[in-house]
Amino acid sequence: MIQKSKIIIKTDGYLDVTNITPMVMNEVKGLDVRDGNALLFCAGSTAVITSIEFEPGLKRDIKKYFDRLFPHAEDYAHNIIANDDNGASHLLSALIKPSFSFPVIDGVPILGKWQQIVFIECDMRARTREILLQIVS
Amino acid sequence: MIQKSKIIIKTDGYLDVTNITPMVMNEVKGLDVRDGNALLFCAGSTAVITSIEFEPGLKRDIKKYFDRLFPHAEDYAHNIIANDDNGASHLLSALIKPSFSFPVIDGVPILGKWQQIVFIECDMRARTREILLQIVS
Amino acid sequence: MIQKSKIIIKTDGYLDVTNITPMVMNEVKGLDVRDGNALLFCAGSTAVITSIEFEPGLKRDIKKYFDRLFPHAEDYAHNIIANDDNGASHLLSALIKPSFSFPVIDGVPILGKWQQIVFIECDMRARTREILLQIVS
Repeated sequence: MIQKSKIIIKTDGYLDVTNITPMVMNEVKGLDVRDGNALLFCAGSTAVITSIEFEPGLKRDIKKYFDRLFPHAEDYAHNIIANDDNGASHLLSALIKPSFSFPVIDGVPILGKWQQIVFIECDMRARTREILLQIVS
Repeated sequence: MIQKSKIIIKTDGYLDVTNITPMVMNEVKGLDVRDGNALLFCAGSTAVITSIEFEPGLKRDIKKYFDRLFPHAEDYAHNIIANDDNGASHLLSALIKPSFSFPVIDGVPILGKWQQIVFIECDMRARTREILLQIVS
Repeated sequence: MIQKSKIIIKTDGYLDVTNITPMVMNEVKGLDVRDGNALLFCAGSTAVITSIEFEPGLKRDIKKYFDRLFPHAEDYAHNIIANDDNGASHLLSALIKPSFSFPVIDGVPILGKWQQIVFIECDMRARTREILLQIVS
């Protein structure tokens, strides 16, 4: 059986981190699943979904250190050719990917004690994001 | 139901980016699937599959910025011990992974407007690559 | 059908790489699966699962180059706020993710000739890790 659901969030621009775990937990509860294989996927090339301990320190560390991987202010060919500002956003999304897979056991997403599922906005501007949750069970 | 298919491409060596979206779309169409959970996987330790806006600027940015993460010309222990040249290739593949998961809804892979699925060759030399598409539906 | 199994390993602290392929192969053999979609997942926010050619050179390269992405000795806000030492560990796990998806065909995990599935400990200290294997078939 394949079931699906949607999570919609508003983000605050470049490297804003949103904890989507409560929403994911809630959607999983609303579906009919005991053991399942779940995929979160955001259609978009400047989006990232991953997991981290969601606390203020790491939110700041992500802003600093993910930008250090691909500094947003450099002269990306993408920015020059497309007269755009988000070359770094595309590279980060290609590096980390806009999806996250996790197991559901006995109706509950399996996560570590300090582990939350997060959406990381890589685009420069605030956006509304639609995240698809698909569960095979 | 689990179905599978294969995509074969020729790459042009280190950090060559191939847009495999048309081939993926075509393979998905050829399979009997309405809603499904798809996995693209390349057996190989110097391969990467991910998504990005496939345009000439970002192709150049990937060449520059992915090499900056692990510069290919440095003295990797792998290169010295194995008398090889692709230490950076292995590290990039371990970092980004040779797989990509995406949902299929109503028979169509769900992707953003500017989002294409791409194979990034991380090995130094041109290669023929076999990519497995597996869909659970 | 969804089946699951567990792999338990002991790691040796920051950027220790464990080849879990033999254990994965063994668990897959123990399950009743011909063609399947497998997910390895470690509940934890300082864990990484990926694939690489598992040889002594690359083990050393991972220690050097993954630490260069997020140097563990820097002043992470996470370390200061939480009086902790593993800010870099969390960032690496968020970057690479604590999961690995792969296809099983005719009862065997599909991997390249030089490709092994590895667990990379990103936490600073030695730990016991429980890895969930979930197969949809």
